[in-house]
Amino acid sequence: MFSFFTGGTPMTISVVGHSNPDTDSVFSAIAFATLLNAQGQEAQACMQSAAADLNPESAMLLARFGLAAPEEIGDVAGQDVALVDFSDLNQGPANLATANVVAVVDHHKVGDLTTNSPILFRAEPVGCTGTILNKMYKEAGVAIPQAVAAGMLSAILSDTVNFKSPTCTEDDKIAVADLKAVAKVEDTEELFMAMLEAKSSVDGVPAKDLLFRDYKDFEMNGKKVGIGQLELANLEQVASIRADLLAAMEEVKADGRHSVLLMLTDVVKEGTDLVVLSDDPALIEGAFAGTLEMSAMWIEGMMSRKKQTVPNLQKAFGC
Amino acid sequence: MFSFFTGGTPMTISVVGHSNPDTDSVFSAIAFATLLNAQGQEAQACMQSAAADLNPESAMLLARFGLAAPEEIGDVAGQDVALVDFSDLNQGPANLATANVVAVVDHHKVGDLTTNSPILFRAEPVGCTGTILNKMYKEAGVAIPQAVAAGMLSAILSDTVNFKSPTCTEDDKIAVADLKAVAKVEDTEELFMAMLEAKSSVDGVPAKDLLFRDYKDFEMNGKKVGIGQLELANLEQVASIRADLLAAMEEVKADGRHSVLLMLTDVVKEGTDLVVLSDDPALIEGAFAGTLEMSAMWIEGMMSRKKQTVPNLQKAFGC
Repeated sequence: MFSFFTGGTPMTISVVGHSNPDTDSVFSAIAFATLLNAQGQEAQACMQSAAADLNPESAMLLARFGLAAPEEIGDVAGQDVALVDFSDLNQGPANLATANVVAVVDHHKVGDLTTNSPILFRAEPVGCTGTILNKMYKEAGVAIPQAVAAGMLSAILSDTVNFKSPTCTEDDKIAVADLKAVAKVEDTEELFMAMLEAKSSVDGVPAKDLLFRDYKDFEMNGKKVGIGQLELANLEQVASIRADLLAAMEEVKADGRHSVLLMLTDVVKEGTDLVVLSDDPALIEGAFAGTLEMSAMWIEGMMSRKKQTVPNLQKAFGC
Repeated sequence: MFSFFTGGTPMTISVVGHSNPDTDSVFSAIAFATLLNAQGQEAQACMQSAAADLNPESAMLLARFGLAAPEEIGDVAGQDVALVDFSDLNQGPANLATANVVAVVDHHKVGDLTTNSPILFRAEPVGCTGTILNKMYKEAGVAIPQAVAAGMLSAILSDTVNFKSPTCTEDDKIAVADLKAVAKVEDTEELFMAMLEAKSSVDGVPAKDLLFRDYKDFEMNGKKVGIGQLELANLEQVASIRADLLAAMEEVKADGRHSVLLMLTDVVKEGTDLVVLSDDPALIEGAFAGTLEMSAMWIEGMMSRKKQTVPNLQKAFGC
């Protein structure tokens, strides 16, 4: 094992996932901070969200497993930080470009982070950061605490949509088998349905909060494109608030964006009702070989923003 | 194990190290291509050099271990490539930005490569890419062929200057112990001295070739800075060709560079005679707290371009 510190006074490493943290960003921050602690490094799990604003799935899981929510983190200028679940500067905390990034663990495309010194950068094309962290625990010979293992397990079920997402790999299934045993979770189907219920609950939630529940901005050939995703047990859940969602998208689009997309993903039917507001609707239609009706189109089989929506859009935008 | 291919016809992956390949870039290309082959992926070790132009250390080692030189590679537009020992686009083959990068294994600072899809990106702050590849073989449960292990072992001895470089870590020493056994190399001191002799031979070599033997260009706050390094058994070896080296540096500097530095590293004394041509010599003096005399200054303990020279320069240039 190497030390992250080559001189000076070691600072506590803030371990943080992407903005609008999902379950992988929350529990991978906890899991990596715990691993670093076990290896003698001072580290603190953090998140770019107040505990009160956390997505309902992650909040339910933290309560269920008796884990404290990661600390909210703001400006990281000059701080030692480790990134989980992202490597794009614009998905990080304020002033990430002037922080001292000491490590990255991720499963997304390689982002625009650069460093002045060599660091640990571990990315693999698997379904979840939790899968990579499970390998890192094994390679380090460190035992995963039961509650942390339960969180990592949940993150994998969440990111892979219970193995149904095209991002899911054999490695993710192996990790789930490992983590089930450590977490003493016998019924992952029950766990996944509890997550789905928590996550897809829209009752009384303002439309704009729903849009931002799992939302990311992307830079595509000089244009700003926002993409939100709501995973639902069925589309009926949002039928009565469709106009409100469109109004929220209008508002977000008016703030300098070329396009705003909202993926209403039916997890059971395995497809997405893609709602689109764009300066160039034909370009978005072309990206997915679909036809918009009332600003929306059904895309059979679309489950993953990262693996399906973003690459198709990048191609259409000429990135 | 995951596959790099999600559709279409799989192409052979060209595995390539940085320009002006050193021993790590050469043998890590061979080692990673061999690992990919063992995992059922078509892959070919490549290098950004003709076999005839390869650095004398690597050429000696290929002959000693009976390995074929990696194939020379040129333009990689649209090809599947895996990078070893670098992640900066400007250190790669022509049109790397439009290639399909499927994997990176590296031990340098995180460069400016970005991708459109998730890939394997494995970087660690260790002394040599070969050390990381040894871990990857172990994790994959794949046996390393004897000659390949000998090459990886040599790469680690070369990059860590026989464990003397400040970049050397415990992980590198563990890898050397592993690889010694597989390679059936008993005396690593003898191997290292044979490498040093081959590498530091300057007899009859044109000064410009010596400058470019291990040379990299860097972008520092908008200015182009070239840094070459010659590792020597002693400084006497270059005493008679000093004027020729300065003339070669003048010529390279005149081609749009703010500064050209040549590290004449005395591997036995563990320090560097740093030769400097710069538009702003005081800035370079400040970077290393030294004073140039006859365009050169002795920097005690300076062994590593990556860990010592480049970070100090970046600080001085305000990167």
